[in-house]
Amino acid sequence: MKSWQNSASSANSPVWGEKEKSFIEVEERVRYSETDQMGVAHNKNYFEWFEIGRTEYIRQKKIPYKEIEKLGYYLVVVEAFCRYRRPLHYDDLFIIRVRLDELTAKKAVFSYELLTGNDRKLIASGYTVHIVTNSQGVVTFLPEEILKKIKAPAA
Amino acid sequence: MKSWQNSASSANSPVWGEKEKSFIEVEERVRYSETDQMGVAHNKNYFEWFEIGRTEYIRQKKIPYKEIEKLGYYLVVVEAFCRYRRPLHYDDLFIIRVRLDELTAKKAVFSYELLTGNDRKLIASGYTVHIVTNSQGVVTFLPEEILKKIKAPAA
Amino acid sequence: MKSWQNSASSANSPVWGEKEKSFIEVEERVRYSETDQMGVAHNKNYFEWFEIGRTEYIRQKKIPYKEIEKLGYYLVVVEAFCRYRRPLHYDDLFIIRVRLDELTAKKAVFSYELLTGNDRKLIASGYTVHIVTNSQGVVTFLPEEILKKIKAPAA
Amino acid sequence: MKSWQNSASSANSPVWGEKEKSFIEVEERVRYSETDQMGVAHNKNYFEWFEIGRTEYIRQKKIPYKEIEKLGYYLVVVEAFCRYRRPLHYDDLFIIRVRLDELTAKKAVFSYELLTGNDRKLIASGYTVHIVTNSQGVVTFLPEEILKKIKAPAA
Repeated sequence: MKSWQNSASSANSPVWGEKEKSFIEVEERVRYSETDQMGVAHNKNYFEWFEIGRTEYIRQKKIPYKEIEKLGYYLVVVEAFCRYRRPLHYDDLFIIRVRLDELTAKKAVFSYELLTGNDRKLIASGYTVHIVTNSQGVVTFLPEEILKKIKAPAA
Repeated sequence: MKSWQNSASSANSPVWGEKEKSFIEVEERVRYSETDQMGVAHNKNYFEWFEIGRTEYIRQKKIPYKEIEKLGYYLVVVEAFCRYRRPLHYDDLFIIRVRLDELTAKKAVFSYELLTGNDRKLIASGYTVHIVTNSQGVVTFLPEEILKKIKAPAA
Repeated sequence: MKSWQNSASSANSPVWGEKEKSFIEVEERVRYSETDQMGVAHNKNYFEWFEIGRTEYIRQKKIPYKEIEKLGYYLVVVEAFCRYRRPLHYDDLFIIRVRLDELTAKKAVFSYELLTGNDRKLIASGYTVHIVTNSQGVVTFLPEEILKKIKAPAA
Repeated sequence: MKSWQNSASSANSPVWGEKEKSFIEVEERVRYSETDQMGVAHNKNYFEWFEIGRTEYIRQKKIPYKEIEKLGYYLVVVEAFCRYRRPLHYDDLFIIRVRLDELTAKKAVFSYELLTGNDRKLIASGYTVHIVTNSQGVVTFLPEEILKKIKAPAA
């Protein structure tokens, strides 16, 4: 699944091609509180940024994630990975790209790339794996209706 | 209520006297992720530390805060204040002191002091004001039973 | 300074009038990771949002805060206060308003209001007090040049 | 390296055997601010907990990480992974276990397991990969002296 992570070029540039239509992009800025004493954004924030991207991805499918939770379905993170390639500094503008790699009634996999805001160099890449549970944390199935909406091309 | 904040000595030393029996102390360490690029703990973490102290204060009253929430009562923060006097650095050991200043069926006020771990110098002081709500966020009253427990001297 | 906090109307509506030209506004959304088990945004995040507003306020004065730090000056928070009036939920859109209440070579005071994104109701209000230090944390003075820029009307 | 992640038993129990002497354990509690509206600890906090474990691991080698940074060496995270198996709730006591899997002058790999505080069931497992840089972010080599200390058995 993650073969793009091993490609020679991936160390310096984004890998998702122009032809791939399924990803969306969000712009963010590094908050002061997200830096650490090394002077760069702390590694844990990347997972928060991945989540922001995920929220936007699903919103564009006309079924905001908060609606999915209201219907009683939760996309619980069971795996998270990030590869850090370039540091991010306070106030840096950057782009979060999100792609849905896999979606079934039981499981979802999202991939992410962070790019510099000005020249679109690769800052980080990663993925998260999710299972579907109800509000009690019991594994369940996403109904067909929600699946269809998320899989539909963005408007 | 906060007159101790204005006393001349308070800039350099804790103010709560030995005679005051009602406060408790917890020890914590500054996490790397809690520092910012200034090289010190970021101001927002102090409110997280106040909360840790609050949790420990109530736990010692034999009614952990999580039990209070399970009974359907929430101590919602409606005011928070902190005065920062000394910086905290990564890995610094410090003491959180917590005191319950006011408790009625409708309202609670906690005060806090953070002290250096080695020589007990004042790092920061502050307070939080809470109202009581149910799980829907509607204002309600803490039952007498819970009030009694929190007001009882620690075991 | 904070008399607007005591006004009768302030419980339900923003207080800064149309005539006040000196404040700026930024729009943000509540991140999933910013909620807590009460289902609302955790109190500590408000101080992070105040900081986002502060960053934008200074950026509009054509001297981004990161430039001020590069010149060797730090606006260290010595006091922070927030009054919470309405809860914020995941994915809520809200407005951060920031006003510079006081600025001298030694001290700065910023005030903040958070408003709901749709009907501009007051969510929270607060302030932060800052002193000026160098990179070693020693109190110093902001040079006239920086003071002038921050005090100049936004472009 | 991560073959233990695939073992059948790993879904329910820690995998590091009694014979493995090289790991250390730290106890922590879930903070209220670390929960999200799902009612469990948010996924990003696990990376903060891994870091707490790392700090303690190195401290026990008589060369606290803050000393290493003072000498001009930084262990920058270039990869981070976590597999989540059981939820953690507010105020839960849990154990962070840390093991150093690899250490050279240029690279370090740490592995982690989180266990429930009472019956030592597996909550999560993961790893972080680090490279060595100087304070400017330039790749460098850890001096032999520091390497020896970290590799030495804990006192």
